[in-house]
Amino acid sequence: MPEIHSARRARAQEQLSSFGVDAALITNAVNVRYLTGLVSSNAAVLLPASGEAKLATDARYLGTAERDCYDLELINERDVAEALVSEALLGGLSSIGFEDSDLTVRRHRALVELEDAGGDAGHSPLELVPLGGLIDECRMVKDDAEIESLTQACQITGQAFSQMLDMVRPGVTERQYAIALERAMVDLGAEGPAFGSIVASGPHGAIGHHVPTDRPFQAGDLVTVDCGAKVDGYHADMTRTVAIGEPAAWQREIYDLVAAAQAAGVAAARVGAELSEVDSAARDLISEAGHGDYFTHGLGHGVGLLIHEAPWLAQNETGTLQDRVPITIEPGIYLAGAGGVRIEDTLVVRAGTGAAGSAQSLTTITRELLVL
Amino acid sequence: MPEIHSARRARAQEQLSSFGVDAALITNAVNVRYLTGLVSSNAAVLLPASGEAKLATDARYLGTAERDCYDLELINERDVAEALVSEALLGGLSSIGFEDSDLTVRRHRALVELEDAGGDAGHSPLELVPLGGLIDECRMVKDDAEIESLTQACQITGQAFSQMLDMVRPGVTERQYAIALERAMVDLGAEGPAFGSIVASGPHGAIGHHVPTDRPFQAGDLVTVDCGAKVDGYHADMTRTVAIGEPAAWQREIYDLVAAAQAAGVAAARVGAELSEVDSAARDLISEAGHGDYFTHGLGHGVGLLIHEAPWLAQNETGTLQDRVPITIEPGIYLAGAGGVRIEDTLVVRAGTGAAGSAQSLTTITRELLVL
Repeated sequence: MPEIHSARRARAQEQLSSFGVDAALITNAVNVRYLTGLVSSNAAVLLPASGEAKLATDARYLGTAERDCYDLELINERDVAEALVSEALLGGLSSIGFEDSDLTVRRHRALVELEDAGGDAGHSPLELVPLGGLIDECRMVKDDAEIESLTQACQITGQAFSQMLDMVRPGVTERQYAIALERAMVDLGAEGPAFGSIVASGPHGAIGHHVPTDRPFQAGDLVTVDCGAKVDGYHADMTRTVAIGEPAAWQREIYDLVAAAQAAGVAAARVGAELSEVDSAARDLISEAGHGDYFTHGLGHGVGLLIHEAPWLAQNETGTLQDRVPITIEPGIYLAGAGGVRIEDTLVVRAGTGAAGSAQSLTTITRELLVL
Repeated sequence: MPEIHSARRARAQEQLSSFGVDAALITNAVNVRYLTGLVSSNAAVLLPASGEAKLATDARYLGTAERDCYDLELINERDVAEALVSEALLGGLSSIGFEDSDLTVRRHRALVELEDAGGDAGHSPLELVPLGGLIDECRMVKDDAEIESLTQACQITGQAFSQMLDMVRPGVTERQYAIALERAMVDLGAEGPAFGSIVASGPHGAIGHHVPTDRPFQAGDLVTVDCGAKVDGYHADMTRTVAIGEPAAWQREIYDLVAAAQAAGVAAARVGAELSEVDSAARDLISEAGHGDYFTHGLGHGVGLLIHEAPWLAQNETGTLQDRVPITIEPGIYLAGAGGVRIEDTLVVRAGTGAAGSAQSLTTITRELLVL
C-alpha cells in the first residue's frame, strides 16, 4: 500500500535532515523494499531532502513497479545508481548521501566518474556523503503493518513446530524433518521459511549454525531446532531443544540453565534497557554456572525484513531498546562432541505492554523441556 | 574435498600474478565458497601470491570450517577482512588486492584505518589494489565436479517439471503449482529450488520476473514456468511455456518465433563465439518478425554458484565463449496485457562435443509447444 511506504519515506526524510545533503541514494535492496514495497535485485531510490522520491529499476521489474509503486516517478535503467545520480545532478542536486555499508567500492567509483564527466555540464560538483545505517535505523522501529506480519510469521512457526513434533523420533533424519517442518510452514500460509532451518541432533547440537544432515535421530539425543516462517518479507526466528527419551543429568542441567538464562533475558528486555545489560542478564547466569565459555554468541538480534538486523544484544554494543523493536532472545550452551541446547523466542519490546515496558513474546509455545 | 578447492586456489594464484600484489583478500561469500568449500555469511580468505591461504570466519561457522577446510589455517574472528589484513601486515605482506565489486565503501575504510593504525608498527604501508572480478572470472570456466553438479540439477529440474505437468490445469493457482514443483525437486534430491519459481499465466506472462499469485490457471492461457533445482550449490535454470487448451493463432505465432530464436541462439553458442553475436543470432529473428521491442532482456547468462553470473549474452558485451562455460539461452516475447512466451535451456559450451565446439543442453525436455 503506497500510504505505508510514503509514511516511511517521510520519516526517513526527517532523519536525513541532520546530514545536510540534498538527497539520499538508497541502494540496499531491503531498504528499497522498505521505502517503496518493490522487491527487486536491481533497484535504487533517490530520496530528496524534501519532495517526492524517484525509483529506478530495470525492465524485468518495471511492470511490478508500475503496478505497486504508482505514486513514484519510475526510471527504467540497468545501472540504477548511476541513473539516479545523473538525474539528481541534472535537477540541481549535488550533495548526495549514500549507503556506505551497501555501496561497493566499484559502484562508488562509477558515481565519482559521473562527477568527473559532469564537470563540463556546468552543474555543481557532486559531493558523496556516507549515511551510515540511516535507513537501517529507521527500520529498527516497526510500524503496525510490520508487527502484524511478524506476529503472523511467529504464529505459523509455532504451529508448524507443534504439528511436526511427532516426526522427532528415532530413525527420521535431520534433513527429512527440516523439509517437513518448512513445508508445514508454507501449508499454514508462510511465503517460505525465513532461513534454512537448523536441525542439530546429538553431537551436532554443539554446532551453532549446523546444516541438517542425513543423521537419523537417536534415543538419548537432544535435538535443537532453529526455524522460522516468513510472511510478507518478515522473518520469524524461534529455537526449541527437545529430548528423545529421558534426558541424562548433564542434558537436563544445561537445559535448565539455558531456560533460566532465556527467561532472565526476556525479563530484562524492556524499553530503555541497555543492549549490553540485556545480554548480561542472561549471560551472567550461564557464566556463574561455569559454562560461560560455551555460550559463544550474542544473546539476540533484531528481526524484520532481514533475519539478522539491528539492534544487536551483545557485550560490546551501546544503545538502548526502544518501543516497537522486535528482537530475539536466544542463549545457548554448546559442548563440543557432546551436544547443545538453545532456546529462542522472537519478542517485540513495547511501551506499556503487560508489566510496563516489557517485551511481548510472539513465539509462544512452551519452553519446558519436551521429552518425546 | 580439499583437493578440488586447493586446485582452484592454485588457478586463482596464477591469475593473481598479473596484478603484482602480495596477496588477495577475498570477501565475496560465493568466491570464498568456491575457493574453500565453506558456506558462510561471514568469512573471508587471504590468498597469498604463493603459499597457503588463510580462512577467517566466526564461531558460528568454525566447527564446519575445522571439519571441511582442515588444510587451511583458520582464524576465528568476527571482523574477518580486518583480521586477515592485520595478519598480512604482520607477516610482511603490504600490497593487497581486494574485490572492489564486493567490498563496501565502509569496510574499505576500515581497512584503510588499519593501515593508519599500522603506521606506528614499523611495517610497510598497506596498498589496496582493486582486483575487479578476478575470482568471478576463474569461476566462469567450470571443473568436472561443477559440471557434474549442474548436470544433476538440470536433470532434476526436467524430471520435476514433467512430473508436475498434470497440475497445469484450470483451477490450480500459480502459487499452488509453484510450491508443488519446488517440492518435487527436493523429493528428487535437490537441496532446494535455485530461485523462486516464476509461474506466469495468461496476462502475467508479459511480466518477465512475475511472482506467482493466487490467479487460477484458465483455459486459453499460455503459462510460462521458469524454474530450477539447486544441487551442491549449483543452479539449474530452465523455462518452458505451455498452453492450456488449443492456442490462439497469436499465441502459436509468438511461440514458434521464440522457439526458432532459441534454437538459433543454441546453434550460435560455440567455443570462440562473440557474446554479442550469440545474442544477435536469436534477437535478429525476433526483430525481423517485428517483435524486437518485446524481447526486453539479454539472451542469457552464465550459471554456477550464482543463478546469474558471467558471461552475459547481450548486445553490449564483449568477449567470447570458452570451453566448459555453462550458460542459459532464453529469448522471450512479452506482450503487455496479453501474455508472453519464454523458452530457456541451461547448456554447457564444450570444445569437441557433438558438432565441434557446440553447446550441450543439460535441460533436455522437449521444446515443442505442449498443449495440455
